[in-house]
Amino acid sequence: MSIAKLTEAERDALLSDHRQWSLARDGAAIERKFAFADFSEAWGFMNRVALIAEKHDHHPEWFNVYNRVEITLTTHDAAPESGGALSARDVKMVEAIEALLG
Amino acid sequence: MSIAKLTEAERDALLSDHRQWSLARDGAAIERKFAFADFSEAWGFMNRVALIAEKHDHHPEWFNVYNRVEITLTTHDAAPESGGALSARDVKMVEAIEALLG
Repeated sequence: MSIAKLTEAERDALLSDHRQWSLARDGAAIERKFAFADFSEAWGFMNRVALIAEKHDHHPEWFNVYNRVEITLTTHDAAPESGGALSARDVKMVEAIEALLG
Repeated sequence: MSIAKLTEAERDALLSDHRQWSLARDGAAIERKFAFADFSEAWGFMNRVALIAEKHDHHPEWFNVYNRVEITLTTHDAAPESGGALSARDVKMVEAIEALLG
């Protein structure tokens, strides 16, 4: 099933609402880097994000070392021929991740 | 506290004992890519590795997307000036990770 890409206005709104996130891959993805106190805190956060990802069936590409976490979101089904594009699914994930941080 | 680097013989033994791992960063690190059935299985594995990492106080650099996991191990304190080198800590982590996979 194909998923609609965000329009340029929707993409601008996403960036404007969540200024700690930036576009990556020529606008096909969005990413944020996080730094926590230690591994325990980073891993606690990642577990909460993992539950959200599984519930939404929308999984991040992510990297961790000790207290650092880098999350990249894109929707493969929004542009399968080019590896992905931003969709409403990414907006929901950004909002859910930001809600964890309070 | 400085940690001894693996000797060439110790590094060769590590690679010979664990053939699914390969050297990275000009021999300063070791890595393996894993593929699981789905995110649930990958995340279960990562949680088990996270507990081991925290217990050993030796944390991987790792990447995940859906069912794929990539783990890189190096010991910063074995060569702080160059970003890391392989040490006995990495050998223990490889052995503990492999033990999870049965």
